[in-house]
Amino acid sequence: MVSIFPSARLRVSPFYESALAEGMVSASVYNSMILPTGYGDPQAEYWRIIEGVSQWDVGVERQVQLKGPDAARLAQILSPRDLSKCKVGQGKYVPICNHDGVLLNDPILLKLADDLFWFSIADSDMWLWARAIAAERGLDVEVSEPDVSPMALQGPKAEDVVAHVVGDWVRDIKYFWFRETEIEGIPVAVQRSGWSKQGGFEIYLRDGSRGIQLWNIFREAGKPWGIGPGAPATAERTESGLLSVGGDTDEHTNPFEVRLGQYVDLQVGDDVVGISALRKIAEDGPVRHQLGIILEDSEPRMPPYQWEDIMVEDRKIGSVTNSIWSPRMNANIGFALVDVAAVPGDAVAVFNGDERVSAQLVELPFL
Amino acid sequence: MVSIFPSARLRVSPFYESALAEGMVSASVYNSMILPTGYGDPQAEYWRIIEGVSQWDVGVERQVQLKGPDAARLAQILSPRDLSKCKVGQGKYVPICNHDGVLLNDPILLKLADDLFWFSIADSDMWLWARAIAAERGLDVEVSEPDVSPMALQGPKAEDVVAHVVGDWVRDIKYFWFRETEIEGIPVAVQRSGWSKQGGFEIYLRDGSRGIQLWNIFREAGKPWGIGPGAPATAERTESGLLSVGGDTDEHTNPFEVRLGQYVDLQVGDDVVGISALRKIAEDGPVRHQLGIILEDSEPRMPPYQWEDIMVEDRKIGSVTNSIWSPRMNANIGFALVDVAAVPGDAVAVFNGDERVSAQLVELPFL
Repeated sequence: MVSIFPSARLRVSPFYESALAEGMVSASVYNSMILPTGYGDPQAEYWRIIEGVSQWDVGVERQVQLKGPDAARLAQILSPRDLSKCKVGQGKYVPICNHDGVLLNDPILLKLADDLFWFSIADSDMWLWARAIAAERGLDVEVSEPDVSPMALQGPKAEDVVAHVVGDWVRDIKYFWFRETEIEGIPVAVQRSGWSKQGGFEIYLRDGSRGIQLWNIFREAGKPWGIGPGAPATAERTESGLLSVGGDTDEHTNPFEVRLGQYVDLQVGDDVVGISALRKIAEDGPVRHQLGIILEDSEPRMPPYQWEDIMVEDRKIGSVTNSIWSPRMNANIGFALVDVAAVPGDAVAVFNGDERVSAQLVELPFL
Repeated sequence: MVSIFPSARLRVSPFYESALAEGMVSASVYNSMILPTGYGDPQAEYWRIIEGVSQWDVGVERQVQLKGPDAARLAQILSPRDLSKCKVGQGKYVPICNHDGVLLNDPILLKLADDLFWFSIADSDMWLWARAIAAERGLDVEVSEPDVSPMALQGPKAEDVVAHVVGDWVRDIKYFWFRETEIEGIPVAVQRSGWSKQGGFEIYLRDGSRGIQLWNIFREAGKPWGIGPGAPATAERTESGLLSVGGDTDEHTNPFEVRLGQYVDLQVGDDVVGISALRKIAEDGPVRHQLGIILEDSEPRMPPYQWEDIMVEDRKIGSVTNSIWSPRMNANIGFALVDVAAVPGDAVAVFNGDERVSAQLVELPFL
């Protein structure tokens, strides 16, 4: 057991004290902040996401805010997805790539106004990237990290809880769309979103001094639905085929390799970072693709913390990028980043050091 | 107690298994990797650095490698310190700033060849920054993260241990200079360096598969000098006045505010990122500066994990950016980032929430 403590360099979210009070026992670090990952009862936490409603401190999902006359232009320059039809109040899942077409991040872009955008980012210092591009191109835009911290309600009962707190209008919100509002005077944006496929919302807290108050409002409101604390769940996200950039990707991975090709619009402007490289990759065809993998050991095993080799006879065809026990499938499952020649149904072997496990490639998602 | 576990997204260094075997009990995360911070006996670990020799897993100090015809040019563009006289085998402490002159990182630059450089970075994704600048300027340089992981030997007896392993030539190495060599066939670079002021070396392991072997070589060699595990020590670095970028700095801090003005050469070329802004700041004079602060409570207190307000009567004049009990000074000491009008000798008050502690501003370093 290795303990971690926050510091000025390793920040906490406005919900940190609430997470401690709920009994947080484990954490990860994401965007240089403490991300609660467990509350001591993994089984209950998993099933709460699948069957009930789970409350997550995901304040680590930082916002890279673009504001100013060139904000829309910079948003498009940073993303190879066509944003020309994005409306105020709409969010879009967008890949961000470097000049070689390598995937750097996969944020949700929120359009708050014609000159105001948030990239709600995955784990990496995207403000450095955005500021460098903006400054080098001489754009008139301010790139900053606003006082915004998401809290998530996830699970099939999340909508009832959120509707109870903010009103039935949230039931009509489309996926990734959002509305700015107040909850007992606390400024928030409410978005249908979240890093699970069980349905739910993210509540973007816009006043970091009121995290505990906001947490408690939902904690109380959710009691009739059996709300409890939780966190982004590796088992659920693996079953559902959700990507973890930085976990499932390496320094060579492009969007086409990890099922994000549908979010790349090759006809966007030539000034979009990486678009030339992406056009070339699309034309040549990617060399790897992402599949599911089912391991044939029958007991839950410790999730490995490094990629594992996937072999066919003596030939390495790719890597398992994550694997975990699936309570709903009663199997160890994972993601495989493999040669495009490898297809669902292929029998393979997974090696962790000298330890060999038979496995089979399958389509994603699992469920 | 909150536990942390490595994952594909939260990598471990080649020395991780050694750190576990040595009894690591706490860790931080730095550059998306596990950084061991404690082995269960803080007092012994502190005094080992001050009086003996301490062995650190600092593989989290990643290298941003610049290689190619424009490598030297990019190194200079990224740094406002004049590098024109930097020789092969030399290292230099360099600030990296953004276009507004804000400090982003404070790496050691190592010049391995005329067309090959490493920035041995503090905590932030500097490869994103370097790649963005290189690509936007069309430079012919490859920016990558090589298989290089530093291990540090720190303390007054470190030189004896390192000389015993690699030879007496290391005794003549100047500060931040380095030599590439092999230790029992393991490729390394040996540099006089390290994040303490007690003297020592960093051994840059260049083959990640041989971390345990390298760790054990020094562990065995150091026994006559009482070597033991340790980690970058907040008490020592605070006493010695060493900066922690990201901990002691915020999104507005420039190098002049945190005693790095001596590493800014205003006459470097106009193409250096941030140089125009830095010239303006130098001309106008910075508005804040960094001093030491001695708190007047007489018992060790928990290091706060957020900046604390420094007040003079009802006026906030700055922040305590870190504080910790100093075993050698028998006091809680820290760094203060304050208005330039505040000077050593000033009596102030520190507030953590409603809790007030009297304090005095002093010069840095403490010792």
